[in-house]
Amino acid sequence: MWKAWMYVLLLAVPVCSEEARMPAPKYTEKGRLIRPEGYREWMFAGANLGMGYTEGQARPRTTYHNIYLQREAFQRFASAGRFPDKTMLVMEVLSVGTNASINRQGSFQDQLIGIEVALKDESRFPEKWAYFNFIGENDRPLPDAAPFRKEQCWNCHNQHGAVDNVFVQFYPVLREVRKP
Amino acid sequence: MWKAWMYVLLLAVPVCSEEARMPAPKYTEKGRLIRPEGYREWMFAGANLGMGYTEGQARPRTTYHNIYLQREAFQRFASAGRFPDKTMLVMEVLSVGTNASINRQGSFQDQLIGIEVALKDESRFPEKWAYFNFIGENDRPLPDAAPFRKEQCWNCHNQHGAVDNVFVQFYPVLREVRKP
Repeated sequence: MWKAWMYVLLLAVPVCSEEARMPAPKYTEKGRLIRPEGYREWMFAGANLGMGYTEGQARPRTTYHNIYLQREAFQRFASAGRFPDKTMLVMEVLSVGTNASINRQGSFQDQLIGIEVALKDESRFPEKWAYFNFIGENDRPLPDAAPFRKEQCWNCHNQHGAVDNVFVQFYPVLREVRKP
Repeated sequence: MWKAWMYVLLLAVPVCSEEARMPAPKYTEKGRLIRPEGYREWMFAGANLGMGYTEGQARPRTTYHNIYLQREAFQRFASAGRFPDKTMLVMEVLSVGTNASINRQGSFQDQLIGIEVALKDESRFPEKWAYFNFIGENDRPLPDAAPFRKEQCWNCHNQHGAVDNVFVQFYPVLREVRKP
């Protein structure tokens, strides 16, 4: 009888390590980040519309953003107050729909344009976090990407992101579990 | 040895039925729907801002909506083109934040106000779907709720929802898997 329980335990052990199951970033041979897939199964952190960070400067187009991160990364953030190594935040960029079907005011999310990614990889990046765009010319999805230069994204994220380079202040799902 | 595998199989069988695992609606003794919990672990379907359905009539306040449904309901919709019995769509209502932190244009999701729920329960409701509000006076969260009358929600959902009483047309995650 005890042998049966041994087998059950052996099966159980590999699933006990949450971060072992966390979807991991994948890279090309040249070290470019491969566009992550399946992120809609991850934890949704929040949405926003048309956000801009400069007075008076219009963005080229108004878009919605949906932000996801791995469930395991969310759970670690909730329990330990920091994002674990290999955290990925995927930001979907979507076009804005309005005055379609029965919609008369406000707007809804229309077409997926593509994604941008924030990645924490402590062994690869001296600054820990790096940022990637997978939206090419004419919105063609890019299969892989090199990181932005530090001054393009990292500086602002590091200076203004409420916790660990992440704009926790803008995402209610993260804000609510933030450690004081 | 074969006995060990028997025990493993016995453990495996209950988890094989997806819809058996689907979070189910719970009711009070008087048949009121109990406010569902843990829905942020479910599938996020889409967000929208300030949606109104009537020309010229201002809504009392502009809010964001985040819509979730059980993962198993989503998978059934993707594979079979219909929502299974006991599907719940939870619509979070959130206040709008702007001009806070580094945000200068557009808006982000600020505070959770509460939830409304669309529920498909074929054994309980002759019209299959029913709609519930869990936001009380002064935004007090309600622990349970009776369904709206048919003309308050059901009629419009049934007439204008693209598939099975659901506004699939407004949710890119659902629209993309919709059967032709």
